[in-house]
Amino acid sequence: MTTLLFDQFLSTDAMAEAFDGPRLIQAMLDFEAALAKAEADEGLIPPSAAEVIARACDVSLYDPNELARASRSAGSLAIPLVKALTARTAELDAEAARHVHKGGTSQDVIDTGNALLTKQALNLIDASLTSLIDRLLGIAEQHADTPILARTLMQPATVTTLGFKMLGWIAPLQRSRAALTELADLALALQLGGAVGTLSALGDKGPAVSRRMAQELGLALPDGCWHTQRDTWMRLGAEVGILTGTLGKIATDLSLMAQGEIGELAEPSGAGRGGSSAMPHKRNPVSSMVALAAFYRAPGRVATMLSTMAQEHERGLGNWQAELAEWPHLFMGAHGALQALNDAFQGLIVDPARMRANIDSLLGLVFAEAAGAVLAKAIGRAAAHHELESLSREAAASGTHLLTLTLARVQASDALRGQVDEAALRLAFEPSEAARHATHVTRERLQRLRAA
Amino acid sequence: MTTLLFDQFLSTDAMAEAFDGPRLIQAMLDFEAALAKAEADEGLIPPSAAEVIARACDVSLYDPNELARASRSAGSLAIPLVKALTARTAELDAEAARHVHKGGTSQDVIDTGNALLTKQALNLIDASLTSLIDRLLGIAEQHADTPILARTLMQPATVTTLGFKMLGWIAPLQRSRAALTELADLALALQLGGAVGTLSALGDKGPAVSRRMAQELGLALPDGCWHTQRDTWMRLGAEVGILTGTLGKIATDLSLMAQGEIGELAEPSGAGRGGSSAMPHKRNPVSSMVALAAFYRAPGRVATMLSTMAQEHERGLGNWQAELAEWPHLFMGAHGALQALNDAFQGLIVDPARMRANIDSLLGLVFAEAAGAVLAKAIGRAAAHHELESLSREAAASGTHLLTLTLARVQASDALRGQVDEAALRLAFEPSEAARHATHVTRERLQRLRAA
Amino acid sequence: MTTLLFDQFLSTDAMAEAFDGPRLIQAMLDFEAALAKAEADEGLIPPSAAEVIARACDVSLYDPNELARASRSAGSLAIPLVKALTARTAELDAEAARHVHKGGTSQDVIDTGNALLTKQALNLIDASLTSLIDRLLGIAEQHADTPILARTLMQPATVTTLGFKMLGWIAPLQRSRAALTELADLALALQLGGAVGTLSALGDKGPAVSRRMAQELGLALPDGCWHTQRDTWMRLGAEVGILTGTLGKIATDLSLMAQGEIGELAEPSGAGRGGSSAMPHKRNPVSSMVALAAFYRAPGRVATMLSTMAQEHERGLGNWQAELAEWPHLFMGAHGALQALNDAFQGLIVDPARMRANIDSLLGLVFAEAAGAVLAKAIGRAAAHHELESLSREAAASGTHLLTLTLARVQASDALRGQVDEAALRLAFEPSEAARHATHVTRERLQRLRAA
Amino acid sequence: MTTLLFDQFLSTDAMAEAFDGPRLIQAMLDFEAALAKAEADEGLIPPSAAEVIARACDVSLYDPNELARASRSAGSLAIPLVKALTARTAELDAEAARHVHKGGTSQDVIDTGNALLTKQALNLIDASLTSLIDRLLGIAEQHADTPILARTLMQPATVTTLGFKMLGWIAPLQRSRAALTELADLALALQLGGAVGTLSALGDKGPAVSRRMAQELGLALPDGCWHTQRDTWMRLGAEVGILTGTLGKIATDLSLMAQGEIGELAEPSGAGRGGSSAMPHKRNPVSSMVALAAFYRAPGRVATMLSTMAQEHERGLGNWQAELAEWPHLFMGAHGALQALNDAFQGLIVDPARMRANIDSLLGLVFAEAAGAVLAKAIGRAAAHHELESLSREAAASGTHLLTLTLARVQASDALRGQVDEAALRLAFEPSEAARHATHVTRERLQRLRAA
Repeated sequence: MTTLLFDQFLSTDAMAEAFDGPRLIQAMLDFEAALAKAEADEGLIPPSAAEVIARACDVSLYDPNELARASRSAGSLAIPLVKALTARTAELDAEAARHVHKGGTSQDVIDTGNALLTKQALNLIDASLTSLIDRLLGIAEQHADTPILARTLMQPATVTTLGFKMLGWIAPLQRSRAALTELADLALALQLGGAVGTLSALGDKGPAVSRRMAQELGLALPDGCWHTQRDTWMRLGAEVGILTGTLGKIATDLSLMAQGEIGELAEPSGAGRGGSSAMPHKRNPVSSMVALAAFYRAPGRVATMLSTMAQEHERGLGNWQAELAEWPHLFMGAHGALQALNDAFQGLIVDPARMRANIDSLLGLVFAEAAGAVLAKAIGRAAAHHELESLSREAAASGTHLLTLTLARVQASDALRGQVDEAALRLAFEPSEAARHATHVTRERLQRLRAA
Repeated sequence: MTTLLFDQFLSTDAMAEAFDGPRLIQAMLDFEAALAKAEADEGLIPPSAAEVIARACDVSLYDPNELARASRSAGSLAIPLVKALTARTAELDAEAARHVHKGGTSQDVIDTGNALLTKQALNLIDASLTSLIDRLLGIAEQHADTPILARTLMQPATVTTLGFKMLGWIAPLQRSRAALTELADLALALQLGGAVGTLSALGDKGPAVSRRMAQELGLALPDGCWHTQRDTWMRLGAEVGILTGTLGKIATDLSLMAQGEIGELAEPSGAGRGGSSAMPHKRNPVSSMVALAAFYRAPGRVATMLSTMAQEHERGLGNWQAELAEWPHLFMGAHGALQALNDAFQGLIVDPARMRANIDSLLGLVFAEAAGAVLAKAIGRAAAHHELESLSREAAASGTHLLTLTLARVQASDALRGQVDEAALRLAFEPSEAARHATHVTRERLQRLRAA
Repeated sequence: MTTLLFDQFLSTDAMAEAFDGPRLIQAMLDFEAALAKAEADEGLIPPSAAEVIARACDVSLYDPNELARASRSAGSLAIPLVKALTARTAELDAEAARHVHKGGTSQDVIDTGNALLTKQALNLIDASLTSLIDRLLGIAEQHADTPILARTLMQPATVTTLGFKMLGWIAPLQRSRAALTELADLALALQLGGAVGTLSALGDKGPAVSRRMAQELGLALPDGCWHTQRDTWMRLGAEVGILTGTLGKIATDLSLMAQGEIGELAEPSGAGRGGSSAMPHKRNPVSSMVALAAFYRAPGRVATMLSTMAQEHERGLGNWQAELAEWPHLFMGAHGALQALNDAFQGLIVDPARMRANIDSLLGLVFAEAAGAVLAKAIGRAAAHHELESLSREAAASGTHLLTLTLARVQASDALRGQVDEAALRLAFEPSEAARHATHVTRERLQRLRAA
Repeated sequence: MTTLLFDQFLSTDAMAEAFDGPRLIQAMLDFEAALAKAEADEGLIPPSAAEVIARACDVSLYDPNELARASRSAGSLAIPLVKALTARTAELDAEAARHVHKGGTSQDVIDTGNALLTKQALNLIDASLTSLIDRLLGIAEQHADTPILARTLMQPATVTTLGFKMLGWIAPLQRSRAALTELADLALALQLGGAVGTLSALGDKGPAVSRRMAQELGLALPDGCWHTQRDTWMRLGAEVGILTGTLGKIATDLSLMAQGEIGELAEPSGAGRGGSSAMPHKRNPVSSMVALAAFYRAPGRVATMLSTMAQEHERGLGNWQAELAEWPHLFMGAHGALQALNDAFQGLIVDPARMRANIDSLLGLVFAEAAGAVLAKAIGRAAAHHELESLSREAAASGTHLLTLTLARVQASDALRGQVDEAALRLAFEPSEAARHATHVTRERLQRLRAA
């Protein structure tokens, strides 16, 4: 038994437990119990045998570590487990032991077990996602009209509102939530194909046994086994990767806005949170850090899983096993990121004064486009754009506010003097005016997002 | 202008053209023409200006190479294009030039242009996918009952049918086709957010302009701009990756079955196809090769795109640009693979006699499970499994057929003699009997797949 | 504490232990003890303090699980550890506790700790690699002249020897071994930069303290700290990825040659090895499976690590942490693969008769190039190639041996009759003759590889 | 012929040309000419034939587009090329045509051609890398003592110098340059193995022919062919990936320091550089953008190449072809990034006043560690750390400078009053004092780097 502390560090206890060895073993035993029960209900094995098998399907009767070790030479975790289950069942009732695992194959046990664990994992994801969306909506509603610099290509652009900015965080989360739900309905499916996918060992009872098992286990009933057809499973995995991408986008924005020199947002601080072993003043954005770590790790994992899709014939060699091992890490990362961002936004510190100060410090440069629109009425878009480019350069070089320079230029230019609405020009440099349109859009879209 | 021959080698002319430089420029100009038209219809610019702009929106008036070169220092392909378009429009009508690109930003032009190209790309994919599915269905229907070895972990397992095996190729292709259609409806969307996504330069006309443009261009109207919210776009890209994964699975199976020593399937041969510069007898599976190459290349590309999702603030620095550059390669690979497999299956050589011979050469070992089921009626599953494991080892070691050894063992064993149905035991070693169940399932599922 | 069984399944106990939580904590404590000792030796802290600190640097005094949990809000595993170490030291001697961790920063502790663990990990890799090379050399020497089909593009090509084929497995392993040794000498380096890399807290004693610590810990002394300069570390990681690629190549060849229909090589079988829960006759190549799983997983991991290289300023946010978490998995996979292939080759079953039979069953087609060379003397390379292409097609279609057809063609052709050396033609179809050259090369190169 | 504008946008004309189709064809023809010449020199073919073949080895005689198209069904670019070369040679001299490509195989031609192109590509890389290192050294030497904020986890940490910071950019570039040179010596190697790697068609003349060819082409002579042993090649590719990682790190730092709100560095601006189509004031860091785009794209590409390493038997199916197609993109990205950063640093704008202002604006918080060290002399490290943490919180909350608060605290505290050296405390808050140590280290290491 090994614990990799950095994996643990970047995930949550709840998700780590969801994929913990004993949980997996129990889920595999749940498959075996459900198989026996369904077969008994269909008259394939004696009901009493199913009952005895069910009693032996309790993880506390087995040693996960020993099973893991034995799985290496066996080539599959299911083989030593079925052997141990058969032995345990035989101790209770030798006759019942003859009916253990009838018609199933290793991959049936493992894939179904994994689907059961993933179902729990998705419940954890959904709860954290719902709560994160809720938190973000609350802050966005409160700051629908708070002016803030928009930034493009890592440079100040023009003014937007914090609420509008957050729309761009919330909407993708809602889409991921919907997508996960839809994809889970298909992907969390029973695996039951028998040795080579035809389920021939159950004869014409195969479909009925499958139907019963799917219902018993709370899983979807797929149209045929999916031993080496992993596309539905991949869609779910890719969506977790996409969700992690969105979380990475949020964490990136947050960490950029939390830079000491910008200071518009800050993660909550508190005893033991985000300190430094060397620098007493540090308030490190540790939630962003955890979310970003998940963001860095997800693409390679999704790539690995896609690279395992060419599973040979009726059961893959090495690729299926690689997929199994990568799978939980994807969920562990995503949940670590979700939990971290929930922590960050729960106590988020928002500094509207600093947002305003950051706008002000840019000498009106971010209003150049708006000012250009006012001038364009007199001299056309291209000429106005050109004019403002030159005035912006001058403002930056001289440290003079762009409004001052523009007003002077209007007076000095034959083409502009008298042609430009000076009040409109001054208004173009007002943050709240610049944010007026964004505020309106934000309120409208937030209502729709709340309703969703 | 550069041509990378190995990229070309692994794609199709049609798809390479779909993303060719001039096509992209034209699509970007289509955006500008539609923007002007919609703005004219909403009274934001004079109708005559829109008409003049539309006339200048013709790629033959521009030099893509020069634009590409200028884009490097500008930082975006749209900047030199808008400048050139403005100049060209001005040559026709100086007044009209003032209204070029009003309210739009570089990313609007490029993302929308890219969506227009991708729409064509998906049409190519869909046509090839439809034809491939159709070809596979035809072969599967013809061979619904052709016995063939199923193989697990790269070893002969038991008997299935060719038709059943092909179900596992067809169903994922149909799922990808449905998923692509569904995702394209969302992802092929207008991009129109203006400088920082609020579309503030168009005031309250923004929504109406957007609606008109989306309709004009045949694109979806998204709920807000998606400058740095790439999740919907990623879902589409990931699905192309998943489709390529399925194509890789098919190509893997095909190339394994086409090995000289197995010879169950062969790609069509013909003048210049699959030869070797050194070995005259070679019949290389070149279609599988092209499909596999696409399969190897897709995961890294999907990973790259996921890794670009943390696009900063209102426009990303480097990540968006990386995404743009990777995007066409994903479609070029997928279409190369689809076309190659269409070629392969159009003239596929199927050798049922060889399939039967491969079964026969395995000394009945692949019927061990079926034989075990017969013995299990007498001595239980576990003991029967154990018995057959030992007999299988003996068969392999001695070269004696497993049926012969099993019959002898039944006679020699007190527990088995008289308890085992010998006719059932012999039947267990019949390929067609082994395939009976698979045949039935295949016919049923093929009907459903045909109907879909 | 969580155990992911599929990670465990695909690695070894030894490697999993090498990166186990307590080991990491101890390595971090080793850093702190060495730091204190070096500082004492340089007169920066009292020698008695260093002694007390050293006594507290014992992992059994701490709870790794609790540290992992506290690390989440702290943002680093080092912060709670330094706090706990300070507390424990204070229990022994309050004065000594004032000197704990002087001048160091979290990343110093963690990177150095990780380098110490990696040193052990590389020892494990080297031992397994040495033993694998040795095993492969032994088999190759024994089969330097055993004829076997060479195969290109998954089709029989011409004849080579098993020994020659194995040269292509051994040489890259030797290169990786040399590369790992060379890269480890640079990468297994002390990390000591203090808060921002300048080590300013130690004043002009910094270099001397570093030198002492590197020597004490058995690590290299780098030219400056490498907090956000990860290239040397990445080179080592990439090489582990490349080694895993070579192991994947070997496992691929092995699993292809072990296919039931080809049967030239087989992994050893034995109690519990490579069985199936459903199919008693199965002998699954489980060692190849483990090696292939590692092969599938390594590229995504290397990609993830490369994607973390843009670590911001003086300490990265999220990227460094992601790198830390991925790192052990790369070694766990590689060692799992090495161990598995050692198992496979230790008891490898080689079947020269089957190799010969596989050659014979191909109707002489693989000798087409050699036969072409004989004909080329009469009619030139191009014409001979063309001739043999056509004869090969005929042989494949009719099932007649290519030698028979070629001899007939020589008689029937005016251009060939009397111009072709018939004895040479017959010799061209002899496997041992075809292998003669390969045998010679093999012997020569094996000697060089043995000597290396 | 297709041009993907975004690929072109992110690379350089020089590198795109280095891998352009006609260059590749010519390099393949260079192989054929060298092969014929070496064979003539060894008496295997008539010298006159070699001369005629050499005359036909001129790319202007062939249509790359047609060859690319024919390569699809042939399965290799070499097959139609050898066919066309044979035909062209035959037009000059029918007898000579019989000796074209003797003993070679498709992969020999292509891999060697690719090595020749890569040699040129590495020359381009080396020139740009050398110039970038030189530029960075110049700036670092000029600013060895310029105080600047060091930042960890995206938060201000303490003070360093710009020169010290740049050491962390330069040293990895120098290491990559050395590594590329060393790896190129091994990887830029002749490929000559014939049909299956044994070079048997050349009999005992194989080694001599190889030696002559390697010398003629200016390539290394490898110890055996490397058809499916790609490790040496991968090491070179991985190093280009690592170099791109370092460039990404530099671009990240640069773009963060160039943020409008930080403004310590700026890329040069100028006509058409880094503008915006919507915002006249924008000065986008377009060089950082190009370098970051390369950084995002490299990991996926390296992963793809590692994932192709399991090339089957004596020639891979699909994997080798995928590797060939990915290869040039890695170099195109790296060179685009290098060129962009050369542009950025050539006219880099450094603003030491802004660096100082950024330090000053942080209320002395970044000197907390240094202040802590002064207090530690009185009360020990842990208590001092705790004290400064609390004072830092107060400074941040109240907006009062940390020095003011610390002096007050010293007066108010019984433990501190009279125990603390007040002059030392004041000095701890001096940027130049804080940078003194870094300056010293910088000068020393810069000298070593200059000398290297």
